Amino acid sequence: MPDQPLIVVALGGNAISAPDEEGNVAQQFAHSANTARQLADLVEAGNQLIVTHGNGPQIGNFMLRNEVAARAIYPLPMEVAVAHVQGGMGFMIAQTLTNELTRRGQNLIAIAFVTTVLVDPTDPDFSNPSKPVGTVLNAEEAEYHREEGWQIREIAAGKFRRVVPSPAPIKIMEIDSIRRAVEGGDLIVACGGGGIPVVREPYVGLRGVAAVIDKDLASAVLASELDCDTIIFLSTVEGVAIDFGKPTQRYIDRMTIDDAQHWLDEGQFPPGSMGPKVQGALNFLRASQKPRARAIIGHLSYAADALAGKTGTVIVKN
Amino acid sequence: MPDQPLIVVALGGNAISAPDEEGNVAQQFAHSANTARQLADLVEAGNQLIVTHGNGPQIGNFMLRNEVAARAIYPLPMEVAVAHVQGGMGFMIAQTLTNELTRRGQNLIAIAFVTTVLVDPTDPDFSNPSKPVGTVLNAEEAEYHREEGWQIREIAAGKFRRVVPSPAPIKIMEIDSIRRAVEGGDLIVACGGGGIPVVREPYVGLRGVAAVIDKDLASAVLASELDCDTIIFLSTVEGVAIDFGKPTQRYIDRMTIDDAQHWLDEGQFPPGSMGPKVQGALNFLRASQKPRARAIIGHLSYAADALAGKTGTVIVKN
Repeated sequence: MPDQPLIVVALGGNAISAPDEEGNVAQQFAHSANTARQLADLVEAGNQLIVTHGNGPQIGNFMLRNEVAARAIYPLPMEVAVAHVQGGMGFMIAQTLTNELTRRGQNLIAIAFVTTVLVDPTDPDFSNPSKPVGTVLNAEEAEYHREEGWQIREIAAGKFRRVVPSPAPIKIMEIDSIRRAVEGGDLIVACGGGGIPVVREPYVGLRGVAAVIDKDLASAVLASELDCDTIIFLSTVEGVAIDFGKPTQRYIDRMTIDDAQHWLDEGQFPPGSMGPKVQGALNFLRASQKPRARAIIGHLSYAADALAGKTGTVIVKN
Repeated sequence: MPDQPLIVVALGGNAISAPDEEGNVAQQFAHSANTARQLADLVEAGNQLIVTHGNGPQIGNFMLRNEVAARAIYPLPMEVAVAHVQGGMGFMIAQTLTNELTRRGQNLIAIAFVTTVLVDPTDPDFSNPSKPVGTVLNAEEAEYHREEGWQIREIAAGKFRRVVPSPAPIKIMEIDSIRRAVEGGDLIVACGGGGIPVVREPYVGLRGVAAVIDKDLASAVLASELDCDTIIFLSTVEGVAIDFGKPTQRYIDRMTIDDAQHWLDEGQFPPGSMGPKVQGALNFLRASQKPRARAIIGHLSYAADALAGKTGTVIVKN
């Protein structure tokens, strides 16, 4: 389907989990099925999708399972855990999407690819890790794990969390296979959890590293490498707001690269939430050869409306 | 590369783990790297591979981790566990293979696909499960899990194990995507652990089920659907033996479908080891349109020699 618009859809954590629940597998499948309706709307509107997703709650729970069971069974290193969660979440997201499309009479089987993402071993985040993962630890647990080699940060008095590097994504290693699959009309799930971070080492080759790549930034690399028409970031915010939470707060329907960069520099978009989405949008638009490329930030419950420009924020080149 | 012979390589458990070790991730990567040399030999000999693999020790350890941690964190159902392990093992096998090929100057990135396999919900194995999984349980643990809904079998006096159904694989759901990838020249890892078992339900669509599909039988379905030239089963036996372990034991270099069926009917090939390999070989050869299709059963350390007919057992149509 070479004339279909090609869209990377980056799903936020709430596409799979709600904050006020245990987040077990039945709940994850229920949220995935809801999200699949939104994705199927986009397919029915004539778009070809590449679906990416975060793994925040899932990787946290996976690492907790790992730690609790470590006395009985060898633990899995973080990058191998990310790979496992890609398999588990990819299965779920692909299956719920396939089922929704089948119900609508569309003959498409979604498929998840295990995706690795190259990062730079000299990325500054390796020496000053920024990404908290896993559960909150007390002082004793923190000390125990520190001796094991974890980097620990005190997040409040007497409360600690493991922090891992969150290096910038450079390249999707499997991009040639992904591109061929997309050109063949496949509906794929890729870059789960931001992708498995790998570095290239002399004599060894590629090697996984204990880090977590921001899924919005990884999705932007993927969208650039596939020369997509649009990247859409779906979460539980309705769009980009200026002066968020202040009396002067206002939502932005449309902004240019220059507007977005200006507000980003002003500190309008907090790191870890709106920041990476706007940065991802900028990275994609600047790399894109297409003059009408778009990045959209919208609400998970109104994906088709956001794509149609009826809600959410669209960022354009100029 | 449409003129290259197309080969499904089904890796046995020993490709990734040795029986006398903990089986931790570093050990798994070391075995995978050894196996990658064998696979790279086959690539260098001019073949296109589709790599499949078992997950026996890994899924057992994964379920143990799950169980030990269940008091602290929700457990993952078996089919979701299989999906996770596909991601983790697929990452490892693809990476070690990519690295070995890079060292040899081959410009190929292997990629793992999350693969689901359709099974029949009326398969007799669902009412009489045959496949032991996970650790050995004592009577108290067995009773606890029986009340949770597990099916338990006493394997020796006072020793119990969970048993799950091992239904026959019918169809690889993602076969169209896999076929396109193979036609595009991709080097893929698929059907990990025999694939994630799914059934088709009215109104629901596809749904995962708690079962384990035999990886040799799933590999045979994959090889048939891709119309491969050859399927090769690599494990730690050198080939097919008749009267195995008896004074009259003899290895078979070459046999026809009729020979193999005859010896299978005689009970020469035990279930769970040589049985499914020979059955998989028969299923593949009978489905194949190619008069010169071959199934090979050989040793993991001599893959290229087995493919060249210098060692191992080859099964042919007639």
